Amino acid sequence: MDDRLWPGGGIIAAVARSDSTDTCWDLAVSLAAHHAGGRPIRPGSVSRDIFQVSTMRDLVAGCYDGDTPYAEIMRHGDFGVGTFNALDGEMAAIDGRYYRLHSDGSVGDVDPSDLTPFAAVTFFRADAEIDIEAPCSRADVFTLVDATVPSTSLFYAVRVDGLFGAVTTRTAARQTKPYPRLVETTRSQVERTFRNVRGTIVGFRAPQYAQGTTVAGYHLHFLDDSRTIGGHVLDFELESGRVTLDRDTDLHVQMPTGAQPRDAGADDADIAAEIERSENSG
Amino acid sequence: MDDRLWPGGGIIAAVARSDSTDTCWDLAVSLAAHHAGGRPIRPGSVSRDIFQVSTMRDLVAGCYDGDTPYAEIMRHGDFGVGTFNALDGEMAAIDGRYYRLHSDGSVGDVDPSDLTPFAAVTFFRADAEIDIEAPCSRADVFTLVDATVPSTSLFYAVRVDGLFGAVTTRTAARQTKPYPRLVETTRSQVERTFRNVRGTIVGFRAPQYAQGTTVAGYHLHFLDDSRTIGGHVLDFELESGRVTLDRDTDLHVQMPTGAQPRDAGADDADIAAEIERSENSG
Repeated sequence: MDDRLWPGGGIIAAVARSDSTDTCWDLAVSLAAHHAGGRPIRPGSVSRDIFQVSTMRDLVAGCYDGDTPYAEIMRHGDFGVGTFNALDGEMAAIDGRYYRLHSDGSVGDVDPSDLTPFAAVTFFRADAEIDIEAPCSRADVFTLVDATVPSTSLFYAVRVDGLFGAVTTRTAARQTKPYPRLVETTRSQVERTFRNVRGTIVGFRAPQYAQGTTVAGYHLHFLDDSRTIGGHVLDFELESGRVTLDRDTDLHVQMPTGAQPRDAGADDADIAAEIERSENSG
Repeated sequence: MDDRLWPGGGIIAAVARSDSTDTCWDLAVSLAAHHAGGRPIRPGSVSRDIFQVSTMRDLVAGCYDGDTPYAEIMRHGDFGVGTFNALDGEMAAIDGRYYRLHSDGSVGDVDPSDLTPFAAVTFFRADAEIDIEAPCSRADVFTLVDATVPSTSLFYAVRVDGLFGAVTTRTAARQTKPYPRLVETTRSQVERTFRNVRGTIVGFRAPQYAQGTTVAGYHLHFLDDSRTIGGHVLDFELESGRVTLDRDTDLHVQMPTGAQPRDAGADDADIAAEIERSENSG
């Protein structure tokens, strides 16, 4: 794979062979770079920002009540992930529509008046595409994306469309005060595994140094094609499909303005470990 | 000190006694919160952003050539710190004027066409003031600010005006390619200590989790009242003066768009250590 071709523009097709796994090989990879003259997803929009409300540092510390309505978030993106006040569900935004995934398994639309303590969105525009024609584990897909991105110190929006052999998700459940830390809440949350389901994973890949500001590595939510099941992604097997990457050039973090714990009660090494446990393990 | 009064608004005066040091005591502290109806420093501006170009993670890795001109930076703030392409000097912006501090000790104006690989600016608006009437070390001032800010997980612009018994600074010197890592460059840079000088320190206090995105803790540059001497602050003794704090509500990071090292060549634990050594030690 030739990373000089991104972001230089143009469209190329290439075949990449992954010898790091035995399931993810002979992948037909097409990298489509739509830079020069690129069409914004919304007319008039030239945003390449990720717009984020609050920080993971505050979320893991139990700051579950924000004062930003989704009406404000929606102005900043058509794609992304988030949660709701009191940690009452997961948000996934796909193609401009915002979905609320409830802990009872139901899915509805986000009400613009809903408030959020954490959300990250962008106007998604494809910079590169990777066609997946052989079964890939989550680790395989991450390895492939890591090898494709031009720099691991930048931020990318990541979208995966396809047929999933399995997707394991978790959905945050409404918390009551006094709020526990995030790692406490995830212990009691129900995990669900969906099998042989077509759907879309949306989210972001952030550099390691961004741990605490956001989630370092991958932060992904899933929604099936019927938009009736989904959640925060813990694991998946992709049978076939397409990974689309959007290189975001700016990160805009709106700091929390509401009541703040003076001290989050844990040092930053703990914070990093708590984010890892909260976001990536069952 | 009553941190409930910030950001609640109003103006209070209080006396705080610091018993943590023997030099910084019986401080008359006035906290002036100018929130409701606050006057933007520039008419029409309501920005509370910190606007930052690139990241410390990239700067420590030796990415010293950016493609953002100061003309662009100046649109985003009247106060801040930065450097120049090839690491050729330090930038300090005070009251809307941008100064370039050269490694030979001279000071001039920033040319709007000058490019920067790293800068962080904001439109400074006082949220709180602390009057210093007894000699304070750098550590004393940091302790006082840390105790004053309502949350250590937010970002603040920090300004110190006064009579300094001593200020020790360092000024980056122009580098030649292939660029060394930042820790290598600081070894050869000249330190200067200015004594009994009136001047201004400008910069930021960032939360610990922001290490790598920016400089965790304090990142400060100094310029004397005659605007002829200054540099990156390594240490200072403040005889008397005023610390002014601006709580910034948003952080906007413009990611580097130029040539990027695919891998910075050090893991993130190293990065944090290198930032600490590059920014805070002689």
